[in-house]
Amino acid sequence: MEKLDLVLDRGVRIVASGLGPLPLEISRRIHDKGGLYVGMTGDPRHVERHLESEVDIIVAQGMEAGGHVGKISTFCLVPQVVDRAGDVPVLAAGGVAGGRHLAAALALGAQGVWTGSIWLTTRETDVPEPVVQKLLRASSTDAVVTRVPSGKTSRQLRTPFLDAWEEDGAPKPLPAPLQGMLVNEARRAIVEHDVVDVMGTAVGQVVGMMDRVKSSRDVVYQMVEEYVAVLEMFVRSAELEATSDR
Amino acid sequence: MEKLDLVLDRGVRIVASGLGPLPLEISRRIHDKGGLYVGMTGDPRHVERHLESEVDIIVAQGMEAGGHVGKISTFCLVPQVVDRAGDVPVLAAGGVAGGRHLAAALALGAQGVWTGSIWLTTRETDVPEPVVQKLLRASSTDAVVTRVPSGKTSRQLRTPFLDAWEEDGAPKPLPAPLQGMLVNEARRAIVEHDVVDVMGTAVGQVVGMMDRVKSSRDVVYQMVEEYVAVLEMFVRSAELEATSDR
Repeated sequence: MEKLDLVLDRGVRIVASGLGPLPLEISRRIHDKGGLYVGMTGDPRHVERHLESEVDIIVAQGMEAGGHVGKISTFCLVPQVVDRAGDVPVLAAGGVAGGRHLAAALALGAQGVWTGSIWLTTRETDVPEPVVQKLLRASSTDAVVTRVPSGKTSRQLRTPFLDAWEEDGAPKPLPAPLQGMLVNEARRAIVEHDVVDVMGTAVGQVVGMMDRVKSSRDVVYQMVEEYVAVLEMFVRSAELEATSDR
Repeated sequence: MEKLDLVLDRGVRIVASGLGPLPLEISRRIHDKGGLYVGMTGDPRHVERHLESEVDIIVAQGMEAGGHVGKISTFCLVPQVVDRAGDVPVLAAGGVAGGRHLAAALALGAQGVWTGSIWLTTRETDVPEPVVQKLLRASSTDAVVTRVPSGKTSRQLRTPFLDAWEEDGAPKPLPAPLQGMLVNEARRAIVEHDVVDVMGTAVGQVVGMMDRVKSSRDVVYQMVEEYVAVLEMFVRSAELEATSDR
């Protein structure tokens, strides 16, 4: 709670929880300090508990997302979360690369999108250059679900380090938080010693659509342009229908 | 080829291939007889081979679909397939329950949708009644990927029969077609002897949105109504933008 006050008192206005609903004590403190509380879910059955925790925005995150993920796809998840969320706005996450996805998310009933992986290959990224190059070359199937980094299922860029854990006879990852304690030192050493071959990152299936470095500005502009093109397509199709009705 | 001629000569007009592109010899015979050849893919890297096989329509099927599936979600897959398909129309499959999905599929660049699971709980279904009841109760996470029925990854309603293959010490499923030869007799016997407890079916994650028996007519009407509601939402938002531009 002290740490929470520290960040809220310094002007942080959004607190997002990615691993479950917050206790009321914490969500109310966020509200008291004028902040918004964002809760992420990968399963429609968890929406009720998020609402009970007085969430302001629900992020419905599909299994195609990077990092910790559930089992249900964005396409299947978003309408189910929207149908249970009442007046609480829902953002779609997982698989969002551009404006077509933004339009699709709105069609599914979301109020907007929550993006992640697409920023990893921007000019402003803090991802090491060799990993950026791997991301640009990767296909969607190179973003694999593994329990290696934390013990919980998480989507990561495939590396020889992750593959070794999948070999016949390899031990199963330990449950969280033990697995993280087991591999964190090795993962830190990989980065510190710049062992390019086994360096990876959390990334979603949109990695298959990330094929060149762009500025963050261009990512945003292209998302808007693509969204407007879809909107125009829908408007034209509505006009055609209205004409054929006459 | 004889079997193909037999069905084409009897008026079948669409031949869909779900497990890979057809040889040119076969796709051209379909065209010669006035038929359409539909190819299903779960990976954008396979689009080129589908185009080479002179496909008329590509179905981009996400991993949330029922039956044999790949790894990539509909949300991530469809735009990547559309971008590679040129003038060949693309249908989105996997996770399609209603008109919101239809609109989302069009936003992603598809020309339409290909549906499957939603028909399993219609009044006109041939699925046995006890399995229909299981489907109505099931959540999206009850549609699990398994290699048990065929040896290839396939999404199925979770049953104690499938669970037994996941237990510690259980043998791994054999590669196709051996696994099918191994379990087909057992699967037939389960249905013949009406062993309700272990009866299942191929089904996609949309099973979580199937909560009552509807007529096929209602499924179609509701899809259209929901689609029109989304279209109106987009048209209104475009009008608002036009107004605020003045």
